[in-house]
Amino acid sequence: MRRFVFAACLLATAASAQPPAWRPTPIPNSTEPSEVIAATTAADWRPIADENLLVLELADGGRVYIELAPDFAPVHVANIRRFARGGWWNNAGVYRVQDNYVAQWGNGDAELALPGGVVAQPPAEYERPMGGLTVRPLGFPDSYAPLAGHADSWPIAYDPGRQMAWLTHCYGSVGVGRDVAPSTGTGGELYAVIGHGPRHLDRNIATVGRVVEGIALLAARPRGTGALGFYQVDRGERPVPIRSARIAADLPAAERPQFEVLRSDRPAFDAYVAGRANRGGTFFNIPAGGVDLCNVNVPVRRRPA
Amino acid sequence: MRRFVFAACLLATAASAQPPAWRPTPIPNSTEPSEVIAATTAADWRPIADENLLVLELADGGRVYIELAPDFAPVHVANIRRFARGGWWNNAGVYRVQDNYVAQWGNGDAELALPGGVVAQPPAEYERPMGGLTVRPLGFPDSYAPLAGHADSWPIAYDPGRQMAWLTHCYGSVGVGRDVAPSTGTGGELYAVIGHGPRHLDRNIATVGRVVEGIALLAARPRGTGALGFYQVDRGERPVPIRSARIAADLPAAERPQFEVLRSDRPAFDAYVAGRANRGGTFFNIPAGGVDLCNVNVPVRRRPA
Repeated sequence: MRRFVFAACLLATAASAQPPAWRPTPIPNSTEPSEVIAATTAADWRPIADENLLVLELADGGRVYIELAPDFAPVHVANIRRFARGGWWNNAGVYRVQDNYVAQWGNGDAELALPGGVVAQPPAEYERPMGGLTVRPLGFPDSYAPLAGHADSWPIAYDPGRQMAWLTHCYGSVGVGRDVAPSTGTGGELYAVIGHGPRHLDRNIATVGRVVEGIALLAARPRGTGALGFYQVDRGERPVPIRSARIAADLPAAERPQFEVLRSDRPAFDAYVAGRANRGGTFFNIPAGGVDLCNVNVPVRRRPA
Repeated sequence: MRRFVFAACLLATAASAQPPAWRPTPIPNSTEPSEVIAATTAADWRPIADENLLVLELADGGRVYIELAPDFAPVHVANIRRFARGGWWNNAGVYRVQDNYVAQWGNGDAELALPGGVVAQPPAEYERPMGGLTVRPLGFPDSYAPLAGHADSWPIAYDPGRQMAWLTHCYGSVGVGRDVAPSTGTGGELYAVIGHGPRHLDRNIATVGRVVEGIALLAARPRGTGALGFYQVDRGERPVPIRSARIAADLPAAERPQFEVLRSDRPAFDAYVAGRANRGGTFFNIPAGGVDLCNVNVPVRRRPA
């Protein structure tokens, strides 16, 4: 055991010898993020398609809205639609809440029959080719990947050498619970990130979307005291039941929520990132001159009437 | 307004042109963090001094333990000890919980008389000279500062050019609420980070410590619906009362909690960081080859009997 520890030390020291050099260059008079948003026009936003919006209704009140990412995990997302339409999550529960990590929900029952059409063993949709993506580089260093940025308003990291890109784990990101490989998870058990972006999960798990409204309904929940934050039912920890989980397209037209995301391929997004990297206004004395991917907080809003 | 937006766009584009180049180099067989911890000896840990431990007791049950950082914010920390000893927080409350940001507590009353000895306008203890610190470089890029790492087991960022270092805002970090400059806050109103590390606050506010146990008691609390997550009492949102906040040194000797922090100046810490950067075991297929400062999660434990 000790032998392994020292081997790792040597490698870590070697890695530490050459941290990449850069110098943050603050923009003292950049526009505050809220002012950037206030100055946007309708063309700066894209709608979230009804087919890509999962509506989770909790039995103790409130809804969690999740945008799905079929361009990054098409088979898992197709499964999720089938789970929703097959009633998989009706009367399921949020059975795991691990502090500074994830809240997870589903049936947690490996024996339950999958709804028709669900692919039992989807491919490992953990990354995808960069071709077809319009990538906006973040412009600041990333601790986990050669480069980071946004594509179609999703936070991504990417490797230009391999021409591969992947969705990243930020606060609110939604991923697919899975067993050890070769399991890739079906999509029936999902989690949302409720702490500091656990980026080490990137490329190790299918990331299928993000919570666009209602994340606090998951994040403010009591932590489970079992290993990994699982609720211990025999100690009186009760998973909150899920009343239903539906695809917005299946709701009556008048009841479908209308969300919009700030487009990452327009100048307003550039200004927004610059504002996040150079907070000013009356409160901030020193603009950082940098921002990490997960602190960009891609703006989402209800479509204005 | 629009003019400012476009000026920021140009600057952001210029910044994006040259993201620093690096390539994560995973260590496939590094030791898992839990195994590194299991292999430590007593000498790998340092105690948290009784004088540096703030014990917050919430009226609805549970305690939050906070390690104070007098080496980074001596005047603010001295104030905090005086606030505790003057009973400032007895019957105060957690009056602000902003999702993915902070939970804040205190009296929220600018008119209240300060306990004796409290410095009403401390200096801006937002950074300090590197001299006297034993810095362990993280070894991976940071999005906010030229370099990041640890000193005396605290997460820090630093600028070798100016020879200055500062505590960073990670999950669980504790800072001093303040008004706009020239206010630096007294320390009577404190917050703990309950979301993705808001590193843009670094060097803009006095960071005075970190929660070492009990952060979930703050993070799992209902979010306030007022601006910035302040509870709206007239809408029935009730700040949880604080029964007391004491310095551990003032507790009877037998009741003082004994915490230890993994020392950042020994090989075990190197191995731990390497393990965090290269998660393996049975679950992870692809070690990241990198880790950001706030995902190192400096280990803290109760001192073994």
